[in-house]
Amino acid sequence: MRFTNLFTKTKREAPADEVAKNAQLLMRAGFIHKEMAGVYSLLPLGVRVVNKIANIIREEMNAIGGAEMQSAALQRKEIWGKSGRWDDEAVDIWFKTELQNGTELGLAFTHEEPLAAMMRNFVESYKDLPAYPYDIRTVFRNEPRAKSGVMRGREFFWKALYSFSVDEAQHNAFYEKAKQAYINIFNRAGIGEQTYLTFASGGSFSQYSHEFQTLSDAGEDIIYVDEEKKMAVNKEVYTDEVLADLGLDKNKLVEKKAVETGNIFSLGYKFSEPLELMYKNEAGELKPVFMGSYGIGITRLLGVIAEERNDDRGLVWPAAVAPFQVHIVVIGDDIADQANALYDQLQQKGIEVIIDDRNARPGEKLADADLIGVPVRVVVSSRSLEQGGVEVKRRAESEASIMSVDEFIASLG
Amino acid sequence: MRFTNLFTKTKREAPADEVAKNAQLLMRAGFIHKEMAGVYSLLPLGVRVVNKIANIIREEMNAIGGAEMQSAALQRKEIWGKSGRWDDEAVDIWFKTELQNGTELGLAFTHEEPLAAMMRNFVESYKDLPAYPYDIRTVFRNEPRAKSGVMRGREFFWKALYSFSVDEAQHNAFYEKAKQAYINIFNRAGIGEQTYLTFASGGSFSQYSHEFQTLSDAGEDIIYVDEEKKMAVNKEVYTDEVLADLGLDKNKLVEKKAVETGNIFSLGYKFSEPLELMYKNEAGELKPVFMGSYGIGITRLLGVIAEERNDDRGLVWPAAVAPFQVHIVVIGDDIADQANALYDQLQQKGIEVIIDDRNARPGEKLADADLIGVPVRVVVSSRSLEQGGVEVKRRAESEASIMSVDEFIASLG
Repeated sequence: MRFTNLFTKTKREAPADEVAKNAQLLMRAGFIHKEMAGVYSLLPLGVRVVNKIANIIREEMNAIGGAEMQSAALQRKEIWGKSGRWDDEAVDIWFKTELQNGTELGLAFTHEEPLAAMMRNFVESYKDLPAYPYDIRTVFRNEPRAKSGVMRGREFFWKALYSFSVDEAQHNAFYEKAKQAYINIFNRAGIGEQTYLTFASGGSFSQYSHEFQTLSDAGEDIIYVDEEKKMAVNKEVYTDEVLADLGLDKNKLVEKKAVETGNIFSLGYKFSEPLELMYKNEAGELKPVFMGSYGIGITRLLGVIAEERNDDRGLVWPAAVAPFQVHIVVIGDDIADQANALYDQLQQKGIEVIIDDRNARPGEKLADADLIGVPVRVVVSSRSLEQGGVEVKRRAESEASIMSVDEFIASLG
Repeated sequence: MRFTNLFTKTKREAPADEVAKNAQLLMRAGFIHKEMAGVYSLLPLGVRVVNKIANIIREEMNAIGGAEMQSAALQRKEIWGKSGRWDDEAVDIWFKTELQNGTELGLAFTHEEPLAAMMRNFVESYKDLPAYPYDIRTVFRNEPRAKSGVMRGREFFWKALYSFSVDEAQHNAFYEKAKQAYINIFNRAGIGEQTYLTFASGGSFSQYSHEFQTLSDAGEDIIYVDEEKKMAVNKEVYTDEVLADLGLDKNKLVEKKAVETGNIFSLGYKFSEPLELMYKNEAGELKPVFMGSYGIGITRLLGVIAEERNDDRGLVWPAAVAPFQVHIVVIGDDIADQANALYDQLQQKGIEVIIDDRNARPGEKLADADLIGVPVRVVVSSRSLEQGGVEVKRRAESEASIMSVDEFIASLG
């Protein structure tokens, strides 16, 4: 991409009304635009990071049998009335609206009820199960406070998979696969090391649910971490009884602040029974479907990574989620041809590259490259060409080195 | 993809409460699920078609300098109050909602106002223009009636690009490029032949706007078509004066029903003035930005293509937007290995393929293949193998032929 096609601009100062570091950095660097507290538009750089995260998730969900769909946002009262979740007293973060004829509608904050209702069209017999539809879409939550930037949005992007199984055993086998897929996702997104499988409160069908908590001082959750076992316990279930049950030693646990970046949950018959999602087993008996849900906050991940991967000069993206792999900084008017040739060569090799072709001061271009945080910066200037090539610096390192163009391309692997 | 990972099922009968042919076919074939009138979820097959259409649009928008963003759905009253479009009397298709503190919000039905407001952060001088942000996202319209299936949704997927130019001349140059990009999109999506550039009513800055109208008996618009000149006039501006202005001969025009699948519009200063989106020209004078908007209904295109590309056995997708290129029908238990080998071989070549690996009757599998409408059907059975290969039939043709696997793969080009 050419910088001159990017309609955004970086800012030197953080916006006055934004307290969260992740949003401050993402706004300064031109990844997001704030519409109001808790509501952000994604700018082109932000769209690219979100797509990278979404594609990692998509690959891992498809690998365990998931099938991507796109649920509707507008929701009917009748369906949610069956589970008891329509009432604002039961769910206090609904956005509600209505049709012109006065019919009340809700904006989806999740999709257990509509998906259970939809699956009645497709599930008759045990042969139609298991089924694993998933959404990658925007959902809406009317949060009373929204001060954590994109880590807690009123409108946010997530992935939600719902599992439909014949029984608890079939469910449990998938649940374990989903757990591993989540571990893969956080590892691939570059925050695996500080993300912990965390035991949290369950429901009627399981003693625990599992959260994926990413350590961050900006987090709203308190967890107790066993670093050796790479697991944690959420404060809400942090009792001697639970620790004994999980075989954890209180003396080895460290209290940490963390952000819930994902969760997986055994729902059992909580939604299939009220929504009458049944199947016939081999004996011809009608049985309720066993459900599970598996969420992961995509814009929340964007926020956590921004919050945790930065330095005093700006963002430092892990390569797998970076908006581009290479950021070319062109210094001087006389070397446009050489810089464009490098740009074309990288594009042809399928390497995602942004070229700063603006008519701007070198200092401004270098500062913007640091603020945006693409993994590899390449300066093309008459000085670098005299020295035999281009000046290459990794964002996470401080030393630059001169390489020939061929050496540089080979170094990208 | 494996059919057994697709959680949907085809239906022999159209749903009783659905009158639109496009929605009937898309529901029967498992592309969409109806949540309520005008609100549909996309099932995996539908997601694939929508992604195909969206990617064609994305490529054409990027080629003319567009930069993809993702605007928010939740909208603030203050911004829309400035243009006068907040009032329900001015815009009668708003969905409104509110924050817990009572602040009124709207659900975006378009984004001129928020984008003009956002661009104030990025536009100071003529050097910051032109700019071409675009969205591919869901928007909401509280339609009083919704009887045209996915051709007129209350919640629908669209592309909207907004252009920001220094003056009318810079705007017009882009407008012409956008017009050509739209022609490319409809051609690539397989409905170019029946899509007409149509003159419709303009605004304060242009006598006409341009619609792209796709001929369909299910259409809600009436247009007058000059087939030779490949242009049309919307009924709303069909006067002798307009025909003379456009150099059209009334006797050569044919009245047709059509669906507005796209439109491009010169907005001038209609939004930049009330929202105070200004720039400094070379002389240092403050000037308003000249705006344009360019919409295209993605789920509407899905609907029109379904409505217009079908026969009595089901859907007949143009290859460029088909959910898969090849549909393998496995007949008999004993040939699973050969069928899976073909599936793997096609996948490795990057050909999008679905394999019907269900334990179902041959007649059901063949009928489903026709209903779903993938361009090439390949039957793998012990009979086809005895005859030397696989039985290949194009969806749009009636004759099947036996080919060796190598011949078949070569035939895909």
